[in-house]
Amino acid sequence: MALVVQKYGGTSVGTVERIKAVAEKVGRFHDDGNQVIVTVSAMSGETNRLLGLSNAISSSPAARELDVVVSTGEQVTIGLLVMALIELGYDARSYTGGQVKIITDSAHGKARIQRIEDKNLRNELDAGRIVVVAGFQGVDESGNITTLGRGGSDTTAVALAAALKADECQIYTDVDGVYTTDPRVVDCAKRLDKITFEEMLEMASLGSKVLQIRAVEFAGKFGVPLRVLSSFKEGPGTLITCEEDDSNMERPLISGIAFNRDEAKLTLRGVPDKPGVASHILGPVGDANIEVDMIVQNIGGNSTNDFTFTVHRNEYHKAIEVLTKVAKDVGAAELVSDDKIAKVSVVGVGMRSHAGVASTMFRSLADESINIQMISTSEIKISVVIEEKYLELAVRALHTAFDLDVHEDKD
Amino acid sequence: MALVVQKYGGTSVGTVERIKAVAEKVGRFHDDGNQVIVTVSAMSGETNRLLGLSNAISSSPAARELDVVVSTGEQVTIGLLVMALIELGYDARSYTGGQVKIITDSAHGKARIQRIEDKNLRNELDAGRIVVVAGFQGVDESGNITTLGRGGSDTTAVALAAALKADECQIYTDVDGVYTTDPRVVDCAKRLDKITFEEMLEMASLGSKVLQIRAVEFAGKFGVPLRVLSSFKEGPGTLITCEEDDSNMERPLISGIAFNRDEAKLTLRGVPDKPGVASHILGPVGDANIEVDMIVQNIGGNSTNDFTFTVHRNEYHKAIEVLTKVAKDVGAAELVSDDKIAKVSVVGVGMRSHAGVASTMFRSLADESINIQMISTSEIKISVVIEEKYLELAVRALHTAFDLDVHEDKD
Repeated sequence: MALVVQKYGGTSVGTVERIKAVAEKVGRFHDDGNQVIVTVSAMSGETNRLLGLSNAISSSPAARELDVVVSTGEQVTIGLLVMALIELGYDARSYTGGQVKIITDSAHGKARIQRIEDKNLRNELDAGRIVVVAGFQGVDESGNITTLGRGGSDTTAVALAAALKADECQIYTDVDGVYTTDPRVVDCAKRLDKITFEEMLEMASLGSKVLQIRAVEFAGKFGVPLRVLSSFKEGPGTLITCEEDDSNMERPLISGIAFNRDEAKLTLRGVPDKPGVASHILGPVGDANIEVDMIVQNIGGNSTNDFTFTVHRNEYHKAIEVLTKVAKDVGAAELVSDDKIAKVSVVGVGMRSHAGVASTMFRSLADESINIQMISTSEIKISVVIEEKYLELAVRALHTAFDLDVHEDKD
Repeated sequence: MALVVQKYGGTSVGTVERIKAVAEKVGRFHDDGNQVIVTVSAMSGETNRLLGLSNAISSSPAARELDVVVSTGEQVTIGLLVMALIELGYDARSYTGGQVKIITDSAHGKARIQRIEDKNLRNELDAGRIVVVAGFQGVDESGNITTLGRGGSDTTAVALAAALKADECQIYTDVDGVYTTDPRVVDCAKRLDKITFEEMLEMASLGSKVLQIRAVEFAGKFGVPLRVLSSFKEGPGTLITCEEDDSNMERPLISGIAFNRDEAKLTLRGVPDKPGVASHILGPVGDANIEVDMIVQNIGGNSTNDFTFTVHRNEYHKAIEVLTKVAKDVGAAELVSDDKIAKVSVVGVGMRSHAGVASTMFRSLADESINIQMISTSEIKISVVIEEKYLELAVRALHTAFDLDVHEDKD
């Protein structure tokens, strides 16, 4: 008998019919002799409806009260799902975050889980019940309702799995697993059977929006095996684990090609080469709450540097504003900026022990006459910035170059 | 400085604009130096939406889970109202039933309040905050969410006022007070400044649907002064108190004329006059969960009785079914039934010490050639059953006969 935590997102519980379908899926797992804890999101559209009401009251609604309002979305879903389970003849019971208790800090809207009391849930499981827990929410030590931030239901699932030492945490979504790259860009993208937490983190942060990054970090930290599956079709999904799976000799160098078109690039040319100049540039950017992703510094001419970094495209104009002032302060020659860029990365734990990944990557792009504007590397990934219009071409070329194309017929 | 509990119903908080208007009203009370606790219902339509979702999942949704789902309606309203108060610059905080804690028994959907812990609320009031409490809900001793049944927000308000020994409990509705009778029937009906709990109970149970009966009983039991006011226009409303207001020499005999067209009448003719026959008749009716209102027994001919009672019109056909069987069992001559009846009552604590109310009533009806089918009396009311088509005529005649017509111009 295994203990499994399952998480169903907003689309999976978006209608009464889908909630009934989830109840059947959960019930079959229970029939197979598993102990099942389910965590659910709000029905799709509901969180936005509640945010809309709140924003109609105030352009910046009080954070504590916003949590009181939006946490009702998940509370409705847990009640409805348990009704559906009971209707099918299962013994089941719903729990809000506060009832569990999922104790968080008091950072309303982006609270972090501190601990989970497992006594209530254990008792329910021991009594043979299916337990349905509201995702995305908790209470602080004073009993105030908190939320973990959008998409936080994944985190709830992983935290429950960690607290109860579950055998597996299953995240049901509208895709049937993690792919080598976005199938909308590369037809022959392949579902991965397995991927490591590190790889998943690199894939997720680069735009494969299957899982919340925080949930993956959390799962990695507590060693909770995480599986991504489809709510709508059967299949094994993708298992995310700590193991690098050395048993598999055939393991490819590269697990996937991630990409991101949400970034913009800013370059300060001719920055005088003095100690502390990097912090003089990035300090004001950080002060303006602009997050910086890639940072590259090249030596220019005449003892000056070229300093380049990327920001989210939403903050492009704000960043230009800040940099225009900074450019004068540090005595830079000019500010050059570009929001028509894309970032493409090859990711894989296999590259740790293999040279040659970078050269294969750069050669493939050169073969397609794609110019590389920035390069950044980590232990398990290499990222490049290219002109946005070449994005699809680059991803397809790399997918083929690293032998990721699936050759069987896809179903 | 007074401590006031205010309750706003679903219509009063039915839109974002109305919630903002309520916030202003509450804020003005606080500005006047009062401590204010507010309790609110779900936005109008919301409870029905949640019931609709639940009924789409199951024709008889699990009671515990139904409470989990429907209690979210009030939770949304408390959050929104506090946002609106904070937006106006007030310090305010929302509380769910569970956060207060409002402890109830475990009768989901119709729970009764057992006690209210006042510590949290006291601390908030002492800190100068306005507190907004979700109506209609509580938790049982195990922390399960319960609801008090529809309209239970009135009960929440009274219970809070009793627990905190508030100076007044104000119920804001869409009418501006309790009237001598329904203004839709009698143009010149008069708003009452004051009415006793007993009178209000008789008025409410007879169809003046301004307040929940349970809330009035509760207020009477704990001596909480209750005031009914309009959410939408200014005015003193109607105060409901224990005092019979002996100071007012001009107090009229009769406070109001109540009526009800929701009843139907069943008569068993020629019931043999034997001990225990009444319980033989009403036992099966009670077993079928049919509530009986008026009961009258007259002596017929030949040592037989005529036994008549009224039931809610919704249960008329069920009652006929039960009675048809009972008629045989007790050897009644025939079953006569009629659902085209109406009940009209004159209500007033003043009649205790005055003879002549009954004769005035009966004479007025006779003057209009209205036949009286049944009569039933209590300490402070006299009710008659008449043919339904004479209802408006009877109410107007009695309103005039007991000198209740307002003579000034109405605004």
